Amino acid sequence: MSNPTYRLTEIVGTSDKSTDDAIRNGIAKASQTVRNIDWFEVGQVRGTVQDGDVGSFQVTMKLGFRVED
Amino acid sequence: MSNPTYRLTEIVGTSDKSTDDAIRNGIAKASQTVRNIDWFEVGQVRGTVQDGDVGSFQVTMKLGFRVED
Amino acid sequence: MSNPTYRLTEIVGTSDKSTDDAIRNGIAKASQTVRNIDWFEVGQVRGTVQDGDVGSFQVTMKLGFRVED
Amino acid sequence: MSNPTYRLTEIVGTSDKSTDDAIRNGIAKASQTVRNIDWFEVGQVRGTVQDGDVGSFQVTMKLGFRVED
Amino acid sequence: MSNPTYRLTEIVGTSDKSTDDAIRNGIAKASQTVRNIDWFEVGQVRGTVQDGDVGSFQVTMKLGFRVED
Amino acid sequence: MSNPTYRLTEIVGTSDKSTDDAIRNGIAKASQTVRNIDWFEVGQVRGTVQDGDVGSFQVTMKLGFRVED
Amino acid sequence: MSNPTYRLTEIVGTSDKSTDDAIRNGIAKASQTVRNIDWFEVGQVRGTVQDGDVGSFQVTMKLGFRVED
Amino acid sequence: MSNPTYRLTEIVGTSDKSTDDAIRNGIAKASQTVRNIDWFEVGQVRGTVQDGDVGSFQVTMKLGFRVED
Amino acid sequence: MSNPTYRLTEIVGTSDKSTDDAIRNGIAKASQTVRNIDWFEVGQVRGTVQDGDVGSFQVTMKLGFRVED
Amino acid sequence: MSNPTYRLTEIVGTSDKSTDDAIRNGIAKASQTVRNIDWFEVGQVRGTVQDGDVGSFQVTMKLGFRVED
Amino acid sequence: MSNPTYRLTEIVGTSDKSTDDAIRNGIAKASQTVRNIDWFEVGQVRGTVQDGDVGSFQVTMKLGFRVED
Amino acid sequence: MSNPTYRLTEIVGTSDKSTDDAIRNGIAKASQTVRNIDWFEVGQVRGTVQDGDVGSFQVTMKLGFRVED
Repeated sequence: MSNPTYRLTEIVGTSDKSTDDAIRNGIAKASQTVRNIDWFEVGQVRGTVQDGDVGSFQVTMKLGFRVED
Repeated sequence: MSNPTYRLTEIVGTSDKSTDDAIRNGIAKASQTVRNIDWFEVGQVRGTVQDGDVGSFQVTMKLGFRVED
Repeated sequence: MSNPTYRLTEIVGTSDKSTDDAIRNGIAKASQTVRNIDWFEVGQVRGTVQDGDVGSFQVTMKLGFRVED
Repeated sequence: MSNPTYRLTEIVGTSDKSTDDAIRNGIAKASQTVRNIDWFEVGQVRGTVQDGDVGSFQVTMKLGFRVED
Repeated sequence: MSNPTYRLTEIVGTSDKSTDDAIRNGIAKASQTVRNIDWFEVGQVRGTVQDGDVGSFQVTMKLGFRVED
Repeated sequence: MSNPTYRLTEIVGTSDKSTDDAIRNGIAKASQTVRNIDWFEVGQVRGTVQDGDVGSFQVTMKLGFRVED
Repeated sequence: MSNPTYRLTEIVGTSDKSTDDAIRNGIAKASQTVRNIDWFEVGQVRGTVQDGDVGSFQVTMKLGFRVED
Repeated sequence: MSNPTYRLTEIVGTSDKSTDDAIRNGIAKASQTVRNIDWFEVGQVRGTVQDGDVGSFQVTMKLGFRVED
Repeated sequence: MSNPTYRLTEIVGTSDKSTDDAIRNGIAKASQTVRNIDWFEVGQVRGTVQDGDVGSFQVTMKLGFRVED
Repeated sequence: MSNPTYRLTEIVGTSDKSTDDAIRNGIAKASQTVRNIDWFEVGQVRGTVQDGDVGSFQVTMKLGFRVED
Repeated sequence: MSNPTYRLTEIVGTSDKSTDDAIRNGIAKASQTVRNIDWFEVGQVRGTVQDGDVGSFQVTMKLGFRVED
Repeated sequence: MSNPTYRLTEIVGTSDKSTDDAIRNGIAKASQTVRNIDWFEVGQVRGTVQDGDVGSFQVTMKLGFRVED
C-alpha cells in the first residue's frame, strides 16, 4: 500500500477586496510554481487600514501538496 | 432566578462559494435536528484546492444551544 | 533615527451581512475617535443564530495605531 | 483486560451566584440525561455584567463519561 | 439594521477573599469610569502567597462594552 | 454542487498496550453507534502509571463524520 | 544590585468544597516543605463528578519561590 | 484591606538597535501619558529586514498600571 | 474528608525504538527516585534524525504523583 | 566561533501501520532531497477512518536541517 | 490594483553572543539565497548551556518575503 | 544502546541590565545546585517598570538536564 508524503508551505495572500479573495489570490500565485496543491489551512487574518476602511486583507495560510515519487 | 445550561456541538460547514456561505450551510443543516441554537464560534478555516483555485471552503465551528427543561 | 511607538486597541465589529462587513464596520466606527490606525488583526469570529441562519457576525480584532509625538 | 472508551460533551453551566455554582448547575443539568459522568474540565469562565456587578457566571466545561458496553 | 461596535478593555481585579470577589471588585471599579459594560471574560487567575495561604487573588479579565453612537 | 456538513465528536480511547492501540480501540467502539466516520484528530496523550510502567494509555481525539441528508 | 532567581514548582491542590479551597489546600501543603513561596498561577481547573455533583475540585497551579543565596 | 484594580494596555515599542531598546522605548513613550506603570509582559518580537540585516525591532507588550482611587 | 495534593515533574524520556518505549523508559527511570507516580501527560514528541531514519525518539511528559502526609 | 543557521521544513508523513511508521516514512522521503536533517518535531497526529479502524495515520512534523556554508 | 503574495520560511539563527545577534546571523545567512525578505517574527528562544553559562543562543523565526511576478 | 532520561526544571532569572543577562543569571544560579544542565527554553519575558524605564527583566525559562544513572 502506498504511503504518500505531503509538504506544507506557508504563504500570505492579499486582496483589496475581501478575505476570500486574498485566499484565492495566494493559492493562484503559488500554483504557478508548486504542483499538486491539495488543501489550505488559514492561520491568521490581518490587514492594513486606510482612511477608516480596509486597505488590504492579508491572509496567512499553509498549503499542503503531495511530494511526487 | 433561572440559571440555564447550554450545550456546544462542533460541526464543519462547507461551501464551494465562500467562507460565510460555509458558515451558513453548516448552521442551516444543524438547525434541522437541533433546536434553540443561539450562537456560533468559528474554530478553523481550511479547504480543498483544485486547479489553482479553492475547491471548497471548510469551516469548523461550535454551535451553542440552550438545554430545555 | 525615529523609533515610533504603536498602541493596540481591541474591538468587536458586527454585521448582519458578512464577516468582512463586520471588519469594515468596526474599523469605520473606531476611526471616528482614533487617529492613525495602521493595521488590524482578527482574533475570533463568532455570531448569533436566528431561525437557522446567521443573525449577526461578530469579529473580535485588534487595531494598531501610531502614538503621536 | 478491559479498555473502556469515554466520550466528552461540552456544556456551559450558569449561575447568578458564583463560578463554582455554575459548575455544579451545569453538571446537575447534564446528569439528568447523561449517565456515568466521571470528570469535568473547565475551559473558559465568562459572564454578563449588570449595574456594575456580575449578572451571571458562565462556565464552559467538558464532561467525560464512560461509554457503556 | 443596526450593527453596533464593542470595545474590550483588560483589567486585573484583586481580592483578599476569593476569586469571584476579585472579579466583582474589578468590574465594580471599572464601572465607575466605563459605561455600558456588557460582559467579562476571565484570562488568568493568579495571586500572592503569604504565610502558607493566599495573600490576594488576582484575576485578569477582559470587559466588553458597547461603543455609543 | 453538494456542500456536505460534518460533525465532530470527542472521545478518549484507552489501551493497556500502546498509543496506537488506544486510538484503534476508541474508533472501533465509536463505530458501533456512529456511522460514516471519516477522520480522527489526536488531542492529548496521557495515561496511568502502575509499578513504574504504563498502566493504560489514554488518547483524547475528535472523530469527524458526515451528517446524512 | 541584587538579581534574585526564582523557581517554579507545579502542583495540584484538591478540595471537596470549592475551587478556592483547592488552591488554599495545595499552597498550605507545599508550604510545609518549600520556603519563600511568593506567588501562584492557576493552570487548569478540573475535578471528579459523583451522583450529579462535584466530587472534588482539582486545581493545577504553579508556585513561585525565591532561591536562597 | 485594600483590593486595588489594575489596567493593561498593549503597545508596540520599536528600535533600530536591539530588542531590549525597543522595550525601553515603548515604556518611556507610554510613561509620558500613563501614570503608575508597574510591570510589562512581552507578547511578540518581530521586525523589519533591510539589506540582509534587521531594520527595526518591534516588541508587542502589555503594560500594567494601578487604577487610582 | 481527605484532600490530597499532587506534584507534577517534567521529564524527557528517550528511546531508539518507538514513541511508546520512550514514554516507558522515562517513567521507569523516574520511578527509581519518585514514589507514588499516578499518571503521565505527553507534552511534545520530537527526536533526532540519522541517515534518513529516526535516531532517537524524545517524549516530553509530565508525571503526577501524590504528596505524602 | 561558528554560528550555524538551520532551516525548518514542514511535512506530513503517512502510514497504514502506525504513528511511528508515519514519522519514519516522512523522514525517509524528505531525506531523498534534503541533506543534513538533524531533528524532527511532531505537530499533529490525525488520520483517516475506514470500516471502524484506522485507514492511515498522518503525522504533521517539522524537520530541522543545517544550512550549508 | 496589485495584490502581492508573500512566502514565509522558518529558520533557526544561532549565536554565542546574544539573542539579537542570533536573529541577525540567521537573517544574514538567509539573505544569501532568498531575495526580498521584508520582515521576521520570532517564535522561540532557546539555547545550549555549558559550564553554567549560555553556550549558544538559538532563535527560531519566520522570514517573510515577497514572491516576484 | 543507551536511552537517557532528562528532567526539566522551571526558573525565573532576573537582571537590571538586559534580557540576555537575566537568562545568564538564572542559569548561573541554577548551576550551583543542578549538574549536567544541557539546554534552556525561554517561556516568557516580563519585568518591572520604575520611573518610565525597566526596573528589572524577568525571564521564565525551563532548564533541561540529564538524569544520572
